[in-house]
This record gives sequence, C-alpha cells and structure tokens, in this order.
Amino acid sequence: MAAWARAVRGLLLDVSGVLYDSGGEGGGVPIAGSVEAVRRIKAAGLKLQFCTNETQATREKFVKKLQGMGFDISVAEVTAPAPAACRILKERSLRPHLLVHNDLLPEFAEIDKTNPNCVVIGDAAENFTYANLNEAFRVLIGMEKPVLISLGRGRYYKETDGLKLDVGAYMKALEYACDVQAEVVGKPAKMFFESALAEMGVPPQQAGCCGCPQRLFCPACGTSGLRQHVALRELLQGCNRAPELQSQKLCPWKQI
Amino acid sequence: MAAWARAVRGLLLDVSGVLYDSGGEGGGVPIAGSVEAVRRIKAAGLKLQFCTNETQATREKFVKKLQGMGFDISVAEVTAPAPAACRILKERSLRPHLLVHNDLLPEFAEIDKTNPNCVVIGDAAENFTYANLNEAFRVLIGMEKPVLISLGRGRYYKETDGLKLDVGAYMKALEYACDVQAEVVGKPAKMFFESALAEMGVPPQQAGCCGCPQRLFCPACGTSGLRQHVALRELLQGCNRAPELQSQKLCPWKQI
Repeated sequence: MAAWARAVRGLLLDVSGVLYDSGGEGGGVPIAGSVEAVRRIKAAGLKLQFCTNETQATREKFVKKLQGMGFDISVAEVTAPAPAACRILKERSLRPHLLVHNDLLPEFAEIDKTNPNCVVIGDAAENFTYANLNEAFRVLIGMEKPVLISLGRGRYYKETDGLKLDVGAYMKALEYACDVQAEVVGKPAKMFFESALAEMGVPPQQAGCCGCPQRLFCPACGTSGLRQHVALRELLQGCNRAPELQSQKLCPWKQI
Repeated sequence: MAAWARAVRGLLLDVSGVLYDSGGEGGGVPIAGSVEAVRRIKAAGLKLQFCTNETQATREKFVKKLQGMGFDISVAEVTAPAPAACRILKERSLRPHLLVHNDLLPEFAEIDKTNPNCVVIGDAAENFTYANLNEAFRVLIGMEKPVLISLGRGRYYKETDGLKLDVGAYMKALEYACDVQAEVVGKPAKMFFESALAEMGVPPQQAGCCGCPQRLFCPACGTSGLRQHVALRELLQGCNRAPELQSQKLCPWKQI
C-alpha cells in the first residue's frame, strides 16, 4: 500500500447503490457485506462521512432507515444537500420556492419562504407534477435574474420497481425554459465535498473517497495528476460488491 | 417596396401568439385585426401556409378552432409537426412510444406502435406526469441507440391562465437523462420549412415569412446576408399587433 494510503485518516463514502439499493416498501435493502464493511472500516480507526444526494427525506429519517438495515451510522456522519442548501440560503438572504419531496420539507422549516426570490429543486418524485413544474417555472421566469438551486444533478436512479428520472433531468428542463444555469448543491459540487471533509474533521490530504464513479465523486480525479490509486479490496474484503469496487478507486484528496 | 418583395407569391405565417392567443375554454381568442389581415393577404393574391408547432390537436381540430374564430383557413394550408413526424417514422421504419396530448393521437392512428424503437414527444400538457415521463425514459434508456423525436423545441408558451412549460423543456430532461440529442420536427428545423414551402407550392425565392422571432422562424436570417427586410405594416395595416410586428420582419427565403 502506498505511503499516502497508509496516511488516510478518513473516508468519504457514497451510500445509495453502494451500501444499499433503494426503493420498495422498506426504503431499500443493504448490499450483502456492506454492513460488515462499514463496521470493519470504523474498527480500523478510520473516520467515515456518508455523502449522499438523498433528498427524499431528512437526515434523521435517512439515518433511521440505514440503522434499521444494520449500519453503524449517526446523523453527524451524514452530509446531504438540503442542509448545505439551507446554509447558502441564509448566507445570501434567499427565500426559496420549494419543489422538493414532502419528506424533505422539515429540513427547510427554519427558512423564510415568503415572497420567494429563488427556486430550490430536489428529487421531488411524485411531486414532479405538471402543475408543480409550471409553478416553479413561473416563479423563476418572473424574477429579474432567476436563481435556481438544485439539490444534486443526477440523471436517474434505480428503485426496486425500475428506473426513475432524477432531479438533474428536471433541473435541465427549468434551465432550458428560463435560460439560466442552476447552482448545484450536492455531489459532484466541490463545495459539497469541502463541507463533508470539514464535518468529518479530516484535511483533504488525509482523506480518501469511494463509491461513486470517480469522475463524478472525486473532482480531483477528473482534473490532474493523482499520484496513485489503490483498490478498495483491503478495506472491503468480504463485501459482495468487492469485485465491482475494485474497479472503483480510493483517491487521496488533493489540496482543494 | 423592394423588388424582391413585389415578387413574393406566398407567405409562411405563424399562428399562436401572432394570429390568436391560445388557452381558455374556447381554445383561444383572435388578436384584434388578425382575421381581417389574413383575408386581405389572400385578397391580394398571395398564397398562405400556416406554420404551427401546435401538437395539442389534430390539424382538423386546429383548423376548426381557427375557422370558429373567423379565420379563412383550410387543413391543406396547415403545416404541423405530427404529420411531418409520421412521414419520418414511415421512412425509417420507426415504431414510436408516444408521449403526446390525447387529442393528437389520431394523427398517429396509422402508425405501428408495437415494440417501440423510438420515443416521440409532443406538448403533452396534462400527460406530462411523473409516471409518463419515467415510462418514456425507460423506453429510451432501454434502446441500444436511443432515438428521441421531439415535435418542436419551444421553451414555454402563454395560455389565458398563465405560462406553461413547452415540449422543449421536457425534451431537454430526456436528452440529459439518456445522454442523447433529440431530432426536432417542427419550427425551427429547416426541413419543416422546406415541407411548408413544398406544400404551399411556392419556391423559397418567392416566399416570405412572418410572425415568429426571426432567429427562430427564419433559419436564413440567422446565418447570412439577406438583401433587405420590409416591415409588415403594409400587409397587416389595421391589425392591432401592427406596432409589434413592425419590429418583426418579412424575409425573402434564400435558396435552402
């Protein structure tokens, strides 16, 4: 193992599609071996921060679901788009019109939503109705300078009953209609990873990430010379996903 | 009036937003003066071809609606995306999965829709449900090489009860999710105007167009040196839209 990999003190870990498959009545099923892998990573003394673009539930609900599946996880270990968006809204005195999942609304409870001056879109699922999309569009087009904040930009995802369009598709629809570019909060935005590292309390030089296709998950990889990649085999030994994850890589975080 | 303008034998005319405002129970209201303008243009011996991206009704229904408002118009004078798309489907042996308005379905009555190998999307309005969009997406993503045909690419339009997202926005959503580029049938596709000219029986050198913002309606304008533009005032004198239309231009059709 390379020197930098031995120096890794914390990992950013993707969740949906890596630790569990979402959908169905229970909200998903853990991928065989993943519960044990998380336990082993923690037992090895590594810090973990779970990075999710999950916007169909509050972090509390999300954590409860994962705990129900057997994962060792707490709310503080989860970095998700909605709280990150709330920080931005407060900093810039933005009052959102929300097009999000009903279960995510509590994350925005403290935010002033009167007389909106921006639109926040998440994976609204069944709330992506013709009427709701037209309404979000009218709010946006009525602004002098439309501000669209998107909680992620995923294309689609798999649930137990099949593939579903993700928030990115609807973001593109509104972008095109209003001729604006959305500000993406969540993976793969650099700022999102910076928040996750800060919350984990590990500097980028001592952090690794795994789970997502690299070009999305690790902005550093897409740009320039990482020194080395190390397969996850050693960390995830015994996980049924190991053969797949070996083609994913563990990347040291460049100074970002 | 310039020499070329005197040589004009036919006009391509936009309809929605130019001759009438759509929406409401009657399907729209004529813009004051427009019925008379159409009558006067025809009385002057000019041929007319009504070019519409209307995909919420068959041409028969569309013409009936306009006749009801007092317009002198026949089905043969209407160029619309659905019949143009049907020609393409037949030529290329494509079997569509349709995401269109219920009232447009009769235009596709003769088309084989079993075991779809493409998706055709129109302004489906209330049919733009979460379930229908996911279904169209699944059909597309399941193809080895997804083929998406879009009846127009409008961003939005106005109805009497407010602005609505147009087909282009939903086209963008599917394009992004499937990483494909849609083939657009309707304005502003060059082929669509060529069909309209052929149906009118007037060569491009002797045809003018008016109504839409030029850069969308007249591909020739966007590219290179038209000799001259002539305001529509003389043709549309008396129409309440005249002051607006004076900033639109009458363009001779270049050889296309």
